[in-house]
Amino acid sequence: MGIIVQKYGGTSVGSIDRIRNVARRVIKAKKEGHDVVVILSAMAGETDRLINLAKSAVEDPDPRELDVLMSTGEQTSVALFSMVVQSMGYEARSLLGYQAKIITDRAYGRARIHEIDSSRIKEELARNRIVAVAGFQGLDEKNNITTLGRGGSDTTAVALAAALQADVCEIYTDVDGVYTTDPNICPDARKMSRISYKEMLEMASLGAKVLEIRSVELAAKYGVVIHVRSSFNENPGTLVLEEDEQMEDILVTSVTYSKKDARVTLTRVPDKPGVASKIFTSIAAAGIVVDAIIQNQSADGFTDLSFTVPKTDYKQTINLLQPIGSELGAKEILGDEDIGKVSVIGVGMRNHAGVAAKMFKTLSDENINIMMITTSEIKISCVIEGKYTELAVRVLHDAFGLAESTH
Amino acid sequence: MGIIVQKYGGTSVGSIDRIRNVARRVIKAKKEGHDVVVILSAMAGETDRLINLAKSAVEDPDPRELDVLMSTGEQTSVALFSMVVQSMGYEARSLLGYQAKIITDRAYGRARIHEIDSSRIKEELARNRIVAVAGFQGLDEKNNITTLGRGGSDTTAVALAAALQADVCEIYTDVDGVYTTDPNICPDARKMSRISYKEMLEMASLGAKVLEIRSVELAAKYGVVIHVRSSFNENPGTLVLEEDEQMEDILVTSVTYSKKDARVTLTRVPDKPGVASKIFTSIAAAGIVVDAIIQNQSADGFTDLSFTVPKTDYKQTINLLQPIGSELGAKEILGDEDIGKVSVIGVGMRNHAGVAAKMFKTLSDENINIMMITTSEIKISCVIEGKYTELAVRVLHDAFGLAESTH
Repeated sequence: MGIIVQKYGGTSVGSIDRIRNVARRVIKAKKEGHDVVVILSAMAGETDRLINLAKSAVEDPDPRELDVLMSTGEQTSVALFSMVVQSMGYEARSLLGYQAKIITDRAYGRARIHEIDSSRIKEELARNRIVAVAGFQGLDEKNNITTLGRGGSDTTAVALAAALQADVCEIYTDVDGVYTTDPNICPDARKMSRISYKEMLEMASLGAKVLEIRSVELAAKYGVVIHVRSSFNENPGTLVLEEDEQMEDILVTSVTYSKKDARVTLTRVPDKPGVASKIFTSIAAAGIVVDAIIQNQSADGFTDLSFTVPKTDYKQTINLLQPIGSELGAKEILGDEDIGKVSVIGVGMRNHAGVAAKMFKTLSDENINIMMITTSEIKISCVIEGKYTELAVRVLHDAFGLAESTH
Repeated sequence: MGIIVQKYGGTSVGSIDRIRNVARRVIKAKKEGHDVVVILSAMAGETDRLINLAKSAVEDPDPRELDVLMSTGEQTSVALFSMVVQSMGYEARSLLGYQAKIITDRAYGRARIHEIDSSRIKEELARNRIVAVAGFQGLDEKNNITTLGRGGSDTTAVALAAALQADVCEIYTDVDGVYTTDPNICPDARKMSRISYKEMLEMASLGAKVLEIRSVELAAKYGVVIHVRSSFNENPGTLVLEEDEQMEDILVTSVTYSKKDARVTLTRVPDKPGVASKIFTSIAAAGIVVDAIIQNQSADGFTDLSFTVPKTDYKQTINLLQPIGSELGAKEILGDEDIGKVSVIGVGMRNHAGVAAKMFKTLSDENINIMMITTSEIKISCVIEGKYTELAVRVLHDAFGLAESTH
């Protein structure tokens, strides 16, 4: 049999007992004849503890040294895990980012993997050992420790699965798989047995927290099949893979939502070339990511311009816009932090009309006003009043028949 | 000016405030024009926390994985330290064992340094950076993490000082320097301004806790001048260096003691070849280190055999000896955990008679019975009843005039 990559998140290794549970699962796969490579996150709470330690030392920690500190979290996990596996009678070896030769660029705290030299891992597997690789970390070409950012362990797992040509990359988490929407607000939410990379990417960027977005991009690029499942039971989870024809028969596969954005509007901006550029260049220069942008039909040479930014960047955005707004002669700068974004996603909508109409009518039937609309090939997002977010999710989930569909 | 190596122990970096204090000291040396390489231990308490974490996972942690876990302690220290230095406006870089290329053998938990490739450190120094190296850790030729054992940061510091041909290796601790004896039990104890490597080695092996013994051996081998001093004040400490003629004029420089040993006696052992070998081979095979050994004058073909072992190995030693004692026909196996060992040390005694006589008379004057005696070229040790240990230290310190001497 081939190689299985298994990744366990912070909750799954959150205590010694849970690490033992993970060890038993890994040994089970080993007994079934697989070569197993395990990627572990830091124990739940450890990453926050380390960040707080750094913040207690200095206000603005040096990024290189922060990565040196943060990487101790996963180092602790793989060491403890390997001890536990050994004590259960199986050979195990931990490998840190530099030992597993996960080479990244030098963007401390958000490094991207350039290449992996998997020879050491293969050597350990050939000796019949279980290999535990510290997630989230790598090293640059000068031997400096780097980290991949929050959720980076997913990326480590998928990158290793690609490098090792693993049969599957199992991502263990504290939920059973990927749901048609958030079960916490919609009791009808249903676990999907399969979902395409593209849908998963949209879900990840639109607020679903199951998988880190870069890991899905990487999986799509290298055709790595991801199996999202729970470390607390034996239920089959959700396979994330290349779309097939069967998937395209379904218009909408999931509904997502986010309350993380705020809306900013400049009213009565002169409608002439260079205005939008001036505004968005200055916002981008501050590192703020703008999502939806709406520009109204121009009336007598003026227009209203609305866009959303992350709530965490809202104040800074308003401050940035004050001088620009005056300079451009905008009437006022309005802000609204109380908005929600609901989205419907499905590769099937590429070939079918009527999804948008159905979405708008469903919301309208509940008297939910749509403030902004953005679309891509396989999703439609509506910005609405924040207080209607959960209701909107439930009615859309119902309207598109997600509770019943088999996918 | 040249390179200074400074090593700070766990107490000196035991909190963020103390790390700031260390940063200020290091920056001071940097401002004076030195290139500074700093070796840090784990924050006080961290090593115990990590050991307890491992023990909570498994009874007998795999040595390789224990080293992976333990090495996070120093990693945390150097990362925090470097952040703090950067926040104070000076460039700093942390280097872990593998980045500083401290190559060791593969004896996990007690590795020995084979060689150091100091090119990366020199490169960072050339860029005017303060370099913080994680103490206690290295890597073997297969890129596995190793640790040098407790106190190993001293060894890291001296080895780096040798590799970098540093002007001095300053070992910062929570005491002012090396004292003629333990000031806690002898108020007259005096800080020495200088001491020879050989005397320091004897002191370290006889119970003084200031320096790790291997670091002194290494310093002697490469002629590294060690300066033992406090991180909490600016007092000059004690220089440890090659002996000179002036040192040889003084008979005794220090008095040490230890209560860590227990005595074992086999009575009426047949006095014939092979008996001692049989006993000590089996003890050595169990990894137990025997210190003093006394064999009485033989009487009618039988003899009594006494030796000391660490108290922690006492029970195991007695258990080991039961079958051997029976087999050899020994009368009984006696044990005594209530013993102390006092020693006087001085390179001067090589060329002067009368030190032993004076020591025995001093103890005898206090009615302290000497149970065992061991000597080397530059020290005399007496095993006595445990309860007299502190008294013996005080009277010997007085008898050899250590409170007044200038050394």
